[in-house]
Amino acid sequence: MKLADFYQQQLHEDCVSFWFPRAVDEQHGGFLHCFDRDGSLVDSDKSVWAQGRMSWMLLSLYLDDERKPEWLAWAESGLNFLEKRCIDPADGRMYFHVERDGTPIRKRRYAYSESFAAIAHAAHAAATGSDQSEARAKHWFKKFTEWNFTPGLMPPKFTDVRPMIGLGPRMITLVTAQELSLRLGDDEILRGWIDRCIEEIRDFFVKDELRVVMESVTPEGQIVDHFDGRLLNPGHAIEGAWFILEESRRRNSAELTDLGCKMLDWMWERGWDKECGGLFYFRDVFDKPIQEYWHAMKFWWPHDEALIATLMAYQLTGQEKYLLWHQQLKAWSFSHFGDPVHGEWYGYLQRDGSLSSALKGSLWKSFFHHPRALWMCRNMARELNL
Amino acid sequence: MKLADFYQQQLHEDCVSFWFPRAVDEQHGGFLHCFDRDGSLVDSDKSVWAQGRMSWMLLSLYLDDERKPEWLAWAESGLNFLEKRCIDPADGRMYFHVERDGTPIRKRRYAYSESFAAIAHAAHAAATGSDQSEARAKHWFKKFTEWNFTPGLMPPKFTDVRPMIGLGPRMITLVTAQELSLRLGDDEILRGWIDRCIEEIRDFFVKDELRVVMESVTPEGQIVDHFDGRLLNPGHAIEGAWFILEESRRRNSAELTDLGCKMLDWMWERGWDKECGGLFYFRDVFDKPIQEYWHAMKFWWPHDEALIATLMAYQLTGQEKYLLWHQQLKAWSFSHFGDPVHGEWYGYLQRDGSLSSALKGSLWKSFFHHPRALWMCRNMARELNL
Repeated sequence: MKLADFYQQQLHEDCVSFWFPRAVDEQHGGFLHCFDRDGSLVDSDKSVWAQGRMSWMLLSLYLDDERKPEWLAWAESGLNFLEKRCIDPADGRMYFHVERDGTPIRKRRYAYSESFAAIAHAAHAAATGSDQSEARAKHWFKKFTEWNFTPGLMPPKFTDVRPMIGLGPRMITLVTAQELSLRLGDDEILRGWIDRCIEEIRDFFVKDELRVVMESVTPEGQIVDHFDGRLLNPGHAIEGAWFILEESRRRNSAELTDLGCKMLDWMWERGWDKECGGLFYFRDVFDKPIQEYWHAMKFWWPHDEALIATLMAYQLTGQEKYLLWHQQLKAWSFSHFGDPVHGEWYGYLQRDGSLSSALKGSLWKSFFHHPRALWMCRNMARELNL
Repeated sequence: MKLADFYQQQLHEDCVSFWFPRAVDEQHGGFLHCFDRDGSLVDSDKSVWAQGRMSWMLLSLYLDDERKPEWLAWAESGLNFLEKRCIDPADGRMYFHVERDGTPIRKRRYAYSESFAAIAHAAHAAATGSDQSEARAKHWFKKFTEWNFTPGLMPPKFTDVRPMIGLGPRMITLVTAQELSLRLGDDEILRGWIDRCIEEIRDFFVKDELRVVMESVTPEGQIVDHFDGRLLNPGHAIEGAWFILEESRRRNSAELTDLGCKMLDWMWERGWDKECGGLFYFRDVFDKPIQEYWHAMKFWWPHDEALIATLMAYQLTGQEKYLLWHQQLKAWSFSHFGDPVHGEWYGYLQRDGSLSSALKGSLWKSFFHHPRALWMCRNMARELNL
């Protein structure tokens, strides 16, 4: 089977068919997503991230694959739920976790809910031409960047004696700006954020002398030699690598290809488990023992992100090693995360690849990382005639 | 070898000798405790919990085993560090995580630091007759109970639409009151808290119809049928079981023995991994899949707590099954957590018992659960002439 056909089949027959129409909440709107192995609902609560992410993914398929009216209608139900039920009237920020009808359970210090709302609105504007959706996309992007980059706005988790900045906000700002740029058209504001985030990642987090991408550093880019500061998240950094490679595809920039490829190379080297296969969740920059309990587990999403990154690096460079990594990763991932009986990947394996949890969806796992990887890998495989 | 001799040897030759004098911070006072397998320091940060817990454990051995002047001196260094470096002057509450010199890194919503300070001061008062330590023990106990049981005082993690109360604050209040009662003498206030906590555990958390001890319930004792509400922590509930059995030993109460034993029986049944051995970290009350990543891992402390609970249940009831459980648990635990090369237990194993992390100490693991279990099991084995 051709690689493109494999991903096409997995996307629609294994993944989309698991989630839909099951996830559609006909009663309250938006999406249910906490599903057991066989698709039975184990929790009716809703993640606000998931509402935005699932709306965005449906709209991306609507724009790219087929103009199915139900995909548009379901995505609009998600957007409607987000706008009507997920905003705290006290400050206009979004909640993190709500009950099925939108009753708020938890709001967090950080603001990723807003970034996923932004990309969903942007895709909706592209799908329908709605000026209102375009305005909401820009509104949520502004809220998200203000919250993350205005010093003093986000309540701190720690005291200010050992300040650290994170790779995460820069990565999400970058990919959100890219998505808005793709769906709404390029502009100076978006271009400014894209440039700023790539520069900060390159200057503060990418360490040539150690061949590593840090997850957290001081505001001046120094490594903090404590448990938290030493922690690496290879799958996360590899996701960041392909955000930069994606920008290189758009700009045709040898410099960005080099940056993205070295981030991928180094974090593949640090993250791949040579004994059991798969990508470790956390590593320590100095190979010291790690405090986070699940450091040696294998989570689904780093594998999805690395599938994208390896194929994109191959597409940009033509280097055979990236295709070999892609094939090695694909073989391990589909044989360990896949469920031939009920479809959709499991999310959580033990180090040796055995199943830790049968959950297909949770407050963290929804219809996002896996379909995005299948969709993007299918598209790249088509372009590569693989 | 007699069981009492085994525990005596493990306590002093395997455990105390790993931690001391290595953990003593001659420069800033208090204790370092983030150690790698061989005892090398991997983080110089200090847990405020660990300062109180390690002081208490040293003082307990000083009172019970041998009046070694260095144990008293080290414990006093820990108490001094706690009082001088770990209190937030803004509200008189304790920090959670500080740098080596006491510079604060993190304060948390909850107040367990204060409970461990209370028992350390109480043991110090018993060891030295210090009125000041007695007063500090009572001060911290009052702070701790006020913070936990005055509605509205502790900042909530969630909104108030689905309120839940936890087993944890009741268990820690119970054992802290027991410890103050033992070291400072019984009084009405302590007795009131002990009675209240046992009643609330029995009436709200122990569910006869489901043969289970819940970890969280509504303020009326109802099960909340969502991920968080369904979550069981068998090792934690088994620790709670022995706090109640301990009270039964003091009061000679058949009713409390029955309560503690059924809590142990049910949670042993739910927690013991019949396939791989050892105690699961989390279970779901309805056997649904669990969202917490590390649910299937084997942590050291539930095994230490179950060693105490099984031997205490045997001592109180004479039922052979408890001695068999104790032996089964002892065989699995020492062969999987033990490190014959460098001493002291590892903390974190994968489900199959293989090592997940080589850490001997961290912000969570210090000189507390394991030496307490070895010390109490030695004492019970001596009383039982085993």
